[in-house]
Amino acid sequence: MAEPVPDLRHHGDAELRDAAVPVRLDFAVNVRVPQPPRWLRDRLAAGLDTLAAYPDATAATATIAARHGRTAGEVLLTSGAAEAFVLLARVLRPRHAVVVHPQFTEPEAALAAAGHAVDRHILTGAFTLDPEAVPADADLVMIGNPTNPTSVLHPASAITPLLKPGRTVVVDEAFMDAVPGEPESLAGHPDVVVIRSLTKTWGLAGLRVGYVLGPPGLISALKEAQPLWSVSTLGLIAARATCEPDAVAEAETLAKQADQDRDHLLARLAELPDVVVPAAARAPFVLVRTPGAAAVRDRLRAAGIAVRRGDSFPGLGADWLRIAVRDRAASDTLIDSWKRITAPRP
Amino acid sequence: MAEPVPDLRHHGDAELRDAAVPVRLDFAVNVRVPQPPRWLRDRLAAGLDTLAAYPDATAATATIAARHGRTAGEVLLTSGAAEAFVLLARVLRPRHAVVVHPQFTEPEAALAAAGHAVDRHILTGAFTLDPEAVPADADLVMIGNPTNPTSVLHPASAITPLLKPGRTVVVDEAFMDAVPGEPESLAGHPDVVVIRSLTKTWGLAGLRVGYVLGPPGLISALKEAQPLWSVSTLGLIAARATCEPDAVAEAETLAKQADQDRDHLLARLAELPDVVVPAAARAPFVLVRTPGAAAVRDRLRAAGIAVRRGDSFPGLGADWLRIAVRDRAASDTLIDSWKRITAPRP
Repeated sequence: MAEPVPDLRHHGDAELRDAAVPVRLDFAVNVRVPQPPRWLRDRLAAGLDTLAAYPDATAATATIAARHGRTAGEVLLTSGAAEAFVLLARVLRPRHAVVVHPQFTEPEAALAAAGHAVDRHILTGAFTLDPEAVPADADLVMIGNPTNPTSVLHPASAITPLLKPGRTVVVDEAFMDAVPGEPESLAGHPDVVVIRSLTKTWGLAGLRVGYVLGPPGLISALKEAQPLWSVSTLGLIAARATCEPDAVAEAETLAKQADQDRDHLLARLAELPDVVVPAAARAPFVLVRTPGAAAVRDRLRAAGIAVRRGDSFPGLGADWLRIAVRDRAASDTLIDSWKRITAPRP
Repeated sequence: MAEPVPDLRHHGDAELRDAAVPVRLDFAVNVRVPQPPRWLRDRLAAGLDTLAAYPDATAATATIAARHGRTAGEVLLTSGAAEAFVLLARVLRPRHAVVVHPQFTEPEAALAAAGHAVDRHILTGAFTLDPEAVPADADLVMIGNPTNPTSVLHPASAITPLLKPGRTVVVDEAFMDAVPGEPESLAGHPDVVVIRSLTKTWGLAGLRVGYVLGPPGLISALKEAQPLWSVSTLGLIAARATCEPDAVAEAETLAKQADQDRDHLLARLAELPDVVVPAAARAPFVLVRTPGAAAVRDRLRAAGIAVRRGDSFPGLGADWLRIAVRDRAASDTLIDSWKRITAPRP
């Protein structure tokens, strides 16, 4: 009997825990580094002595606002992007919510948990967005850019036409800081709601910190719905540290490195006869289509290598896998193992 | 013109920020220690290297369940007690919610923010709870024990009669671990919803971690409404560390010390002719009534000493102040300063 397809609440971290064999190479989770860099760890360690005081988000908010050329009233720190989706789902009252899929499943899960019906606008082929094809009466449109799991970077010029009176457009830019120069970011656009994460680039998935950029009225409403002191003091320290100019420059360097690492991964994937990469990958992960993806995943997992199942993403199916971009050596191990497990048996 | 009374969202931490003079002695915030103990800080520091992974609450949940003799399904870790109040307000659908006042204002603020009307049941005199006096048709009753700001410890035998079919009883036990032996705790009662904090005893207000104990059905519903990965890895480490038997024993020692420190504070307060302590204090803070409390607070604050205004708590008024229990030397400084600022001018 086939294993059931997991629900929207399935995430890559579960794929590290599910098997008897320990994971030695993780391509399932999209966090890009195995731990925070030393300089960031040291700033967090210094913060441990200040934990008796309640968190005060003032300084971190100002730093984020400056990083994106926004005012403090256009910024809300959240306990990870996950809290941002929940707050948006609670505060907005969409009559017709549209989620552009395939994408990260938490936006839809949060909308559903808040009691909203969700309409799926599913991109196919190379996952190109045609703003004209999005239902005209949608008063909420949620999209990821670059998109998890497709790795597609939509041009800003394809997203801004979605803006219209009475409609809220939310862009999940959790991976935008992995795109050198962030050419298609709408973080500076006053009418777009942008969600950003610090988790992936800085190895902070465990710390729970992200932020929302948006019009001041919406930000105020989200803040009102947010539990008091929602972001920890250490989360605020991390937000401030990673949004300062030096860290933004370091992220840019890391993004360029990730571009090279992805090129290497793509070149090696091209050696696999049954694997197709259907769209230009611009994020620090690659979506691939291959027949019998579940068997490939199981066999890799038995060899201690975790890749992310694709079938839990609406619009994809049994043939899809998502692979995180790692360094060249790791990618080489992946592809060599992949060849071994898919070699015809003698 | 009199300063306006702050709203329900006013908290002691704001009183540290509001003035030109820095605070040298803080009796306003109820956190009991200036920083986490060394052993706890070291465990948190070790956790900094694990932040790239998403939080996994399994182990911390098991430790908390064992500490209170509950099952894992009766425990939900939350991003501070503040998140617990917000989740309860979202999940419960009370027709008649009653909050027993004076008490911590977040439960009522969270109910109001979720759109529920709140009925206040206000205790007076020595703030004694008569369960018969609580409106019979209330289907949600929220009470603190020991209560912030009154410091009253209600007997469990006064709370359990509140239980009846169709009614949810929520007891905020954020300060219960400061009561030696926790004789009136309902943390082990299967039908009561209990909220606990780790913030005050362990100097962790900045870390955001607390938990709810309750029937498995309610816990499941709260978890469904909670953002994914709401408690950080460091919060989980702290929860696990402080709910292990050694830490529980240390909290007991600290609670006995706080009892002695409170006795000293009460003895010194008795030297002040205009100050009344209307109820037996059992928490690590004392509520006092004194004419012209605002002027006393302002003059103490000008001397670098912060005490908590009482007028933001429903049921209290302009004559009330809340004073945290600190060590004997700090209490001596407070009372000596208090005498100076209230001495008749020559």
